[in-house]
Amino acid sequence: MKNHLQIGILGFGTVGSGVLRILKHHEPKLNQVTGVSLRVKKVLVRDIDKKRGAIAEGIELTLDVDEIINDPEIDIVVEVMGSIDEAKNYIKKALKAGKHVVTANKDLIALHGNELVALAKENQCDLYYEASVAGGIPILRTIVDSLASDDIQKVFGIVNGTTNFILSKMTSEGKTYEAALKEAQELGFAESDPTNDVDGIDAARKMVILTRLAFGMNVELDQIETKGIRDLQQEDIQMAEKLGYKIKLIGSAIQIEENISVDVGPVLVPAKHPLASVQNENNAVFVVGAAVGETMYYGPGAGELPTANSIVSDLITVAKNIQLGTSGNVFSSYQHETSLAQDSEVRNKYYIAIEMQDKTGQFLALAKVFSQCDSGFDQIIQQPHSSETAKVVIVTHEINKAQQKEILKALKDSKDMNLLVCFKVMEGK
Amino acid sequence: MKNHLQIGILGFGTVGSGVLRILKHHEPKLNQVTGVSLRVKKVLVRDIDKKRGAIAEGIELTLDVDEIINDPEIDIVVEVMGSIDEAKNYIKKALKAGKHVVTANKDLIALHGNELVALAKENQCDLYYEASVAGGIPILRTIVDSLASDDIQKVFGIVNGTTNFILSKMTSEGKTYEAALKEAQELGFAESDPTNDVDGIDAARKMVILTRLAFGMNVELDQIETKGIRDLQQEDIQMAEKLGYKIKLIGSAIQIEENISVDVGPVLVPAKHPLASVQNENNAVFVVGAAVGETMYYGPGAGELPTANSIVSDLITVAKNIQLGTSGNVFSSYQHETSLAQDSEVRNKYYIAIEMQDKTGQFLALAKVFSQCDSGFDQIIQQPHSSETAKVVIVTHEINKAQQKEILKALKDSKDMNLLVCFKVMEGK
Repeated sequence: MKNHLQIGILGFGTVGSGVLRILKHHEPKLNQVTGVSLRVKKVLVRDIDKKRGAIAEGIELTLDVDEIINDPEIDIVVEVMGSIDEAKNYIKKALKAGKHVVTANKDLIALHGNELVALAKENQCDLYYEASVAGGIPILRTIVDSLASDDIQKVFGIVNGTTNFILSKMTSEGKTYEAALKEAQELGFAESDPTNDVDGIDAARKMVILTRLAFGMNVELDQIETKGIRDLQQEDIQMAEKLGYKIKLIGSAIQIEENISVDVGPVLVPAKHPLASVQNENNAVFVVGAAVGETMYYGPGAGELPTANSIVSDLITVAKNIQLGTSGNVFSSYQHETSLAQDSEVRNKYYIAIEMQDKTGQFLALAKVFSQCDSGFDQIIQQPHSSETAKVVIVTHEINKAQQKEILKALKDSKDMNLLVCFKVMEGK
Repeated sequence: MKNHLQIGILGFGTVGSGVLRILKHHEPKLNQVTGVSLRVKKVLVRDIDKKRGAIAEGIELTLDVDEIINDPEIDIVVEVMGSIDEAKNYIKKALKAGKHVVTANKDLIALHGNELVALAKENQCDLYYEASVAGGIPILRTIVDSLASDDIQKVFGIVNGTTNFILSKMTSEGKTYEAALKEAQELGFAESDPTNDVDGIDAARKMVILTRLAFGMNVELDQIETKGIRDLQQEDIQMAEKLGYKIKLIGSAIQIEENISVDVGPVLVPAKHPLASVQNENNAVFVVGAAVGETMYYGPGAGELPTANSIVSDLITVAKNIQLGTSGNVFSSYQHETSLAQDSEVRNKYYIAIEMQDKTGQFLALAKVFSQCDSGFDQIIQQPHSSETAKVVIVTHEINKAQQKEILKALKDSKDMNLLVCFKVMEGK
């Protein structure tokens, strides 16, 4: 076994220097836990002359990634430079050169994870990415550790901090979507182009990663039914509250027999459910296992220090694997053929909001639509919407997705009824 | 490195057979994760003739613990027999014989953990006990793992399922303490003598364990200010609700400079705080780290399968340590001199309920008590209590514990005022 392991870091931004600081500050503890000393040898930078202070002392800075990749003394490469193509290229090079890799790059892992995982296996290297989902919460590690002795049945939760911030402000302060988004942008929680967050794309990418680990299945982004929060009205939030729910953007991966159902969208969560109390930019993920039951992991969804901390936890694992001779397991090599659940297997209650002409016979027409699709109502509320229209909100019985699609189609086809939104309704707790 | 590790289990109850089942069912995955095969060789039983079915096949049953302890082929001993003295005796023997030990025995670890930890170190053996706190939630492991790269500042939460069940029923169904306790007993969540749970003793034992791991300090049970829920009135629950809080039994360990403050008692938790939504027999623990920020871990506080699952996760760790040559770390060997915070350093808001004669001048007298102790009020509510008395509820400004004690003493000394309860008030979220 080795006495020390050497690390090369790609990128010297806030996360990179956070990793350096943590490694330095906690050196004796890390030593003790891994049985080996972890030492950063080189860091790839864009500007070699920039002043970096004491943190860079004793470390070689380089502009050339090959200086790291071709250095036979470097065992582990940490990628914290961001971007997709360049990072992918470097990580591939590193894996081919037999280096173990730790990355925080969620977009890269969601989009090209399979290719990189395969390459890592081929080269018997580790590839870890704890920081890519839910920042500081050790959710991937928990899933992988639980999996070793349990069968996971569901993974679901709040995996995007930006939308949770916006929804929190809409709920607790009665703000409009636009005002809440503006506040999120001013505070740095949302980007000037918020598309990836507010349309649920970021959450869907995280669900790709979670699904791969929890169920060993490779779901493509376009196989995940993804809805964002742009169409969400303050009215819906208030209506949900009246019905006893909070609206949250939930990513969900559920095993149904041998199949999997993955989606992202606004969900009515019972006000008493622990997910309902997750405020602002925080994340929270439920993991339901056959043995362990329902567990939840909550914490900051992003941030430099939480991210750096997760990277160091990956480094600890890689170091242990090297010493154990169990490298190349690439977080979880648990693999199944990917098989998506049929619409007829996926059952939920739905919240459906409809605008309709406020005239006689409309309600009968509406009732017919649901009755034809064999769905009853749990709750129904009608209230004036404009001078000529009424808004009707329905919470359905539990129906399958095929029925839900049929209902939505019938509503869309109707001249007098205008489908506003359709969200899943979560049960229990 | 070894190809296989052999295990002896002390006890063949529901948890013991749960461990056997998990080890059998997940054998290939466990193999892959640890790089070694885990095999149960012997189980200590009380009745050797009892039918145990397929689960016991290929395993030697014995009535004599020495058969396990003196077996040189056995590497790890799992203690799931309960009791304190007998279990302690066997674990000591096992450690002296160089066996690594995994136990779920919370009472034993809280009371004699130090002695056993020292003995484990002396013999370079592992001693793990994940299942002893919060059942299926991997909270001890998370603390130890976080600690490797972070500084923990606070650990607090709901660590007793029985009292949380009772409080949930009192809050959501308006039950009296007695009725809620009765229901808990009928459902098997509370014992016929509920003292350990309802007086906070069980929670305090868990705080001893959490404090040892998170801060490396050995706090004795009698150094933990421990209050239970026996005196809690339905009125207090409703009053807390009016003020925007839920009452939860919270164990808390907080670092203040170089010192530690540990206590257990009913706390007013803001209704929006994630701890407020933890229902029934569930547990939830907050871990606050300098780098990672606020994280929370939620799940079932007990149960046979969650407990068995935690034991297997300990077995995985022990197996890895054996292979890594890092055995003897006894979960966390992070050690500081134990130093308790002074009353003057510990600051909180308090909820104080007082019954007083409904006559002129009383309120002035009350105001004087607080003013003399230099404490202002955040909120104050008075309402009739009986025909001759009024109940006054005060939420103080943040004061230190010395001030709080002074106030309580003055109230107790007063002839006209009767102190009903004094609980901490949690801020934030």
